[in-house]
Amino acid sequence: MASARVARLATVEADGRAHLVPVCFALDQDTLYSAVDAKPKTTTALRRLANVAARPDVTLLVDHYEEDWERLWWVRLRGRARVESSGPPLELGLSLLADKYPQYRRRPPPGPVLVVELNEARAWSASGPPG
Amino acid sequence: MASARVARLATVEADGRAHLVPVCFALDQDTLYSAVDAKPKTTTALRRLANVAARPDVTLLVDHYEEDWERLWWVRLRGRARVESSGPPLELGLSLLADKYPQYRRRPPPGPVLVVELNEARAWSASGPPG
Repeated sequence: MASARVARLATVEADGRAHLVPVCFALDQDTLYSAVDAKPKTTTALRRLANVAARPDVTLLVDHYEEDWERLWWVRLRGRARVESSGPPLELGLSLLADKYPQYRRRPPPGPVLVVELNEARAWSASGPPG
Repeated sequence: MASARVARLATVEADGRAHLVPVCFALDQDTLYSAVDAKPKTTTALRRLANVAARPDVTLLVDHYEEDWERLWWVRLRGRARVESSGPPLELGLSLLADKYPQYRRRPPPGPVLVVELNEARAWSASGPPG
């Protein structure tokens, strides 16, 4: 799943409802990095960061869909998130993201990065126990 | 987005963390239906239903990923969810899901269905205002 191109990040709003957004991500052992890119979704980006600051427990999902439902799978990750705006954690995150995504090499995101220390993983596969 | 094959459903757990699962869905105007299928993910299915019973406000995301990031888009939906285990709401939901997915026609899910009365939609597109 580390090679998956997109994950969905769920945070929890102040009003207790879930917030959901697709994210690009890079994994380094039990740490996941995601950039807030420079696209025109500023409100959403800020919401995500504010949610994480107030409630650092986040949930991520990577899933595979195809019309043969025997080949469906997903991995759900949980962890504690923090926002890093400068220094080595930001540089490491941006570097890992650039390694994975040529789009980030062409147009480096300014940061900040979201750093998630993963503490739980659950995998499901339609065809039986995941490898 | 009604034709998208998969959405991600976020509910909120009793402990305040988000729960996240991929779902197949059918839309009928402002109502979204999703089946709990008969696959071996019983614990997850039960979790989702228990979460909805305790906190009916759910969030769903449909997104499009491709390597040309100028073509990214997503739609985030919010609504009040309930679980329907019998009668016309279950039958309507299963019928709409069977219309959309041949997989459900071949192997009808037993139910229950999750019925979400949508009350908020937000769309984002990398290339500008969504159509």
